[in-house]
Amino acid sequence: MKNQLNTIPETLLMGPGPSCVYPEVYHALAKPTLGHLDPGFIAIMDEIKEMLKKVMNTKNSLTIPVSGTGSAGMETCFVNLVEPNDRVLVLQNGVFGMRMADVASRLGASVHVLEFDWGTPVIPEQVKEKLDNNTYDLVAVVHAETSTGVKNPVKDIAPLVKQSSALFLVDAVTSLGGIAVHADQWGVDAMYSGTQKCLSCPPGLSPATFSDRAVKKIKHRKTKVPNWYLDLTMLINYWEGSTRAYHHTAPINMLYGLYQSLFSILDHGLDKVYKRHMDCHLDLVDRLKKLGIEMFVEEKYRLPMLNTVKVPAGVDEALVRKQLLEDHRIEIGAGLGSLAGKVWRIGLMGHTAQKKNLDRLTTALSGILGK
Amino acid sequence: MKNQLNTIPETLLMGPGPSCVYPEVYHALAKPTLGHLDPGFIAIMDEIKEMLKKVMNTKNSLTIPVSGTGSAGMETCFVNLVEPNDRVLVLQNGVFGMRMADVASRLGASVHVLEFDWGTPVIPEQVKEKLDNNTYDLVAVVHAETSTGVKNPVKDIAPLVKQSSALFLVDAVTSLGGIAVHADQWGVDAMYSGTQKCLSCPPGLSPATFSDRAVKKIKHRKTKVPNWYLDLTMLINYWEGSTRAYHHTAPINMLYGLYQSLFSILDHGLDKVYKRHMDCHLDLVDRLKKLGIEMFVEEKYRLPMLNTVKVPAGVDEALVRKQLLEDHRIEIGAGLGSLAGKVWRIGLMGHTAQKKNLDRLTTALSGILGK
Repeated sequence: MKNQLNTIPETLLMGPGPSCVYPEVYHALAKPTLGHLDPGFIAIMDEIKEMLKKVMNTKNSLTIPVSGTGSAGMETCFVNLVEPNDRVLVLQNGVFGMRMADVASRLGASVHVLEFDWGTPVIPEQVKEKLDNNTYDLVAVVHAETSTGVKNPVKDIAPLVKQSSALFLVDAVTSLGGIAVHADQWGVDAMYSGTQKCLSCPPGLSPATFSDRAVKKIKHRKTKVPNWYLDLTMLINYWEGSTRAYHHTAPINMLYGLYQSLFSILDHGLDKVYKRHMDCHLDLVDRLKKLGIEMFVEEKYRLPMLNTVKVPAGVDEALVRKQLLEDHRIEIGAGLGSLAGKVWRIGLMGHTAQKKNLDRLTTALSGILGK
Repeated sequence: MKNQLNTIPETLLMGPGPSCVYPEVYHALAKPTLGHLDPGFIAIMDEIKEMLKKVMNTKNSLTIPVSGTGSAGMETCFVNLVEPNDRVLVLQNGVFGMRMADVASRLGASVHVLEFDWGTPVIPEQVKEKLDNNTYDLVAVVHAETSTGVKNPVKDIAPLVKQSSALFLVDAVTSLGGIAVHADQWGVDAMYSGTQKCLSCPPGLSPATFSDRAVKKIKHRKTKVPNWYLDLTMLINYWEGSTRAYHHTAPINMLYGLYQSLFSILDHGLDKVYKRHMDCHLDLVDRLKKLGIEMFVEEKYRLPMLNTVKVPAGVDEALVRKQLLEDHRIEIGAGLGSLAGKVWRIGLMGHTAQKKNLDRLTTALSGILGK
């Protein structure tokens, strides 16, 4: 039998994630596996929590990586914070807002959706009106909508939610490590992310943080969390305290990878990392313009790490992606949902956000499009 | 800041899992990350499914690794197969049977538990009586009870469940890859495992398989699966068919690790691998006897890969484990639940099951115990 792993080609990951992985993170993944209760491993867990707090800008004690990919982080937040018939408001302008509504409705919540056009941001004034006239237990929004490339104004929505009695839940899957995220300053009660975006680690973990207010809600639930694997009341006993109680076996080597990616980012400096993302984004916009490719999102709402661009008229978008991948080993993303066929999604996340990668992409694109 | 990953010591993992990892699996984890929709990655996924079918002895089309550790596999089976008020019978003789009952009850099932003493197996005659006098939608049992070291007679329970109308769910977390598992021959409807036991891969994935009957039950549910992340009706569309639909971003590099571990095991030959486990187990029992250490489980019910042994009278069990780990870098497991303080759990799983490791353990133990 042929071992397919022997022929995996190096690939420039410029889609919506996974992103290119830091070389030192690959190295970390292959470090010797320790037991999940080994004091040496617990020291690594403790430092992961401390580093996550720095990247998330929070002092929340309950700041941990969930043992699953980003969507498991979403599931963790909803399944712990929502009880049947709780009123949940989802601010929705893309696929991941839709997913939030689906997740919450499966848990028996009364889900209300405030919709905004795809490619445009959530409008705080409309949120205010909704909150003035209704009561919710939880309000949820996606910071960086990976499906559209729009940055939602979490900073402006946060004080409105704070004035209500609702908990505030933020999806930071694509934003964390690429643009500033201020969990405490914004008054966020729960936030989750993924390792495979701007943290430049392979997919497999979902860093998440919970405010004291969120923890209080969880501890005073009327019903048990209807999900054993993601039950925070038990996970706390493994991730906190002087004696650590076994819950499930932690994904040890993936946690090494996350440790290393956080270490690298903090070592480089968060502000420098954010600037690298922004510089690359501006450079990309410029280069695409020269190729006659327009951005989908209005300038002031654009995400640096996820660029939705309009497929030029007359171009077979799937064929271009195929050629980029097969002939140049460059992956870019297709449009999702109503944007399928209309846009490409070009990721500049973490280790991918480098000038040499922009060179490689624009040279390849220019050849394919004959520009 | 000091990077803790630089000082992770090599450790002989002889506890209840994680086990020692095959060197080639470490190597696989560090292979270049591909996109989760890259045709090259989909080919790897397809081969993982085929290899899993061989190890699980099944032709089930829906045979996939769940994106979480073993307990996520347990959660996946229950959350997809059980609807509120379904009658679930758990055959329980250890911690993992208890966990099954907890998981099922959180989903609103009517859970019935048939208990057997810890350290003894499930008794088929008692199961028969229970099934003769009651109707259940699902019967669940743990093949290899990691908390007690007992092998349950799944082969003898299977025909009893088959005669009833219930679905048959088997936990093969610790057994898979260490002793023969016959999903189809036994008539199992759902089975899950973990990567960190006899597959000798780090923790992070849960291989699972579902019979056509199980899939039918899932497709005819009255209610949506109350767990978006683990909803098989959506996961199928990513793991099967000609066009693969994005659900969540798969844990790419962990899947490389699983691919390699399955490849290595099949390359070596399943029967040889099982024999290696059994030979090591018999050797261990012999060696422990010479040290005055007795087995906890009666001979005919013992698992080869998980040996519960009685802590000798007058010995500080926690101190011995501490000395083994700190002075010899050997991890063995403590007792769980009612067995805490009374037994040690010595794992001989996958790459750990080698004669040289037995030498290392018995030399160290002999020194510590002064024998």
